[in-house]
Amino acid sequence: MELEFLGTGAGQPSKQRNVSCVALKLLDELNEIWLFDVGEATQHQILRTNIRLRKITKIFISHNHGDHIFGLPGLLSTRSFQGDVGPLTIYGPAGIEQFVKTSLKVSRTKVSYPIKFVELSKPGLICQDKSFRVYTDRLDHRIPSFGFRIVEDSHPGELLIDKLAKYNVPNGPLLGKLKQGQQIVLSDGTVLNGKDFLGPEKPGRIVTIIYDTRSTPSIARLAKDADVLVHESTFAGDEAKMAHNYYHSTSVQAAQIARQENVKKLCLNHISARYMGAKAKKLENQAKKVFPNTILVNDFDRVNIPMKGSEE
Amino acid sequence: MELEFLGTGAGQPSKQRNVSCVALKLLDELNEIWLFDVGEATQHQILRTNIRLRKITKIFISHNHGDHIFGLPGLLSTRSFQGDVGPLTIYGPAGIEQFVKTSLKVSRTKVSYPIKFVELSKPGLICQDKSFRVYTDRLDHRIPSFGFRIVEDSHPGELLIDKLAKYNVPNGPLLGKLKQGQQIVLSDGTVLNGKDFLGPEKPGRIVTIIYDTRSTPSIARLAKDADVLVHESTFAGDEAKMAHNYYHSTSVQAAQIARQENVKKLCLNHISARYMGAKAKKLENQAKKVFPNTILVNDFDRVNIPMKGSEE
Ligand SMILES: [Zn+2]
Ligand SMILES: [Zn+2]
Repeated sequence: MELEFLGTGAGQPSKQRNVSCVALKLLDELNEIWLFDVGEATQHQILRTNIRLRKITKIFISHNHGDHIFGLPGLLSTRSFQGDVGPLTIYGPAGIEQFVKTSLKVSRTKVSYPIKFVELSKPGLICQDKSFRVYTDRLDHRIPSFGFRIVEDSHPGELLIDKLAKYNVPNGPLLGKLKQGQQIVLSDGTVLNGKDFLGPEKPGRIVTIIYDTRSTPSIARLAKDADVLVHESTFAGDEAKMAHNYYHSTSVQAAQIARQENVKKLCLNHISARYMGAKAKKLENQAKKVFPNTILVNDFDRVNIPMKGSEE
Repeated sequence: MELEFLGTGAGQPSKQRNVSCVALKLLDELNEIWLFDVGEATQHQILRTNIRLRKITKIFISHNHGDHIFGLPGLLSTRSFQGDVGPLTIYGPAGIEQFVKTSLKVSRTKVSYPIKFVELSKPGLICQDKSFRVYTDRLDHRIPSFGFRIVEDSHPGELLIDKLAKYNVPNGPLLGKLKQGQQIVLSDGTVLNGKDFLGPEKPGRIVTIIYDTRSTPSIARLAKDADVLVHESTFAGDEAKMAHNYYHSTSVQAAQIARQENVKKLCLNHISARYMGAKAKKLENQAKKVFPNTILVNDFDRVNIPMKGSEE
């Protein structure tokens, strides 16, 4: 489980940062990659990574501003040329379906796979996969904007080998059932309940992705206990008033959420071209004073999300 | 007058070539830049050049395939952020207006300048500027596709100083009128007609841009006597049958047109990612055997178009 940042800029592409896209790579977990926003030239960025378009099965769109959606038609078209591609679902605000369908219709593009659209409108669960759930909530931007909370199912506890030793359970199917918490009967008639031989469940990982918004209460709910919070940081810490006026956030506001909500790691994203070099460092340092485990991300940065309790 | 190639690839972007865009820079002539097709990430390519978006006043779209149009919404949006921008006209096949308007509407983009749409449908003159005319004609592609012939007005001949010497015309307005071919009366009553004192007119320059098409008679008409012919070359010289089946051209077909139609220079464009390095060289060499003054263009190549009769 890894985040790969494909576009960390704000508003317009610059030589340093492309417009918005974050990839959540669930290769070990689902053999899938999910994208969050698809700014123009996302497919160009992907050319410089190991990401294969056919692995992208879900795309989540936070809001319809051009720097978050104009890469969709090209990416969807090019994905079509990778033989044997499966279906794809796009979750986004009203309008995305019209934009994509018009683009494909005018360009006479017939994609080789089904595209399903799920329109975001109200807070709640929008997607339940084998072992992941995605929740959304409304943010506060100039136009409808949505945040995302991706929650992994908890992992069963480990088998307590020491406690089990005296029963001489043979290796094989019986042991497998115990690991799954089921009940078994040994050849001598002894009944064992798996639940009595498993350690505590390991909670699943949580990733929260907050694109364009001003400070608003729903962010805290989405970010609670997240392993990684990716948060827009369009303005510096001392520009809260300007951020509010432009419907954006400061790096310090992002850090305050991270601290309050018991977040493990904060990634500052959606960085304006006004902040380069030392100025970007300042933006990051302001946040670090509030929440030390903060990084300001750059295009092509990768952030691993380790299992809880494992080494980072 | 210079061509700058911003995207010389075919179909999909690759690490070597972006999708289609050619800029015709008329900076000395009109202080304007015209674009021919706007594939995705054209604005990203422009970031790496000296081109300023506000100078782009006309955009010509050959056909609606995604690799020729998906960069339009982003480029138009970003152009809006360059203070004090003038109007822009988009010439293209039916559908372009719907694509652009839907993209801007869904993304809630209000551009700061007027956009005029001119729908291409039949052959003929589509644009008459101060000193340039643009003609179009239908090509033969899978969907409606148009070629462009840009013709500069002829330049008046030079004043024949020697022939004029004996009349002692004073420097100033009278001389200016003669240069423009007008009639003047000297203080001694002598009548002089400017036309008698001007050398031969210099014909204006001609640039022809042929995007996606299979071999078809309209290409010759558009290319006749062109100073530069930019021609698609999606297939190698020995793949005429495949080119025909896919509605594209070979490098040799482009060269044959250049030779037959008295073209000065041929630029092979719209190069498939199947042709890299030695293979691209082969494509070029096949054409050079037929028409020696051929170059296969790469992204960011610039081709100067000198005045007729001046040194190259
Ligand atoms: Zn944004
Ligand atoms: Zn093409």
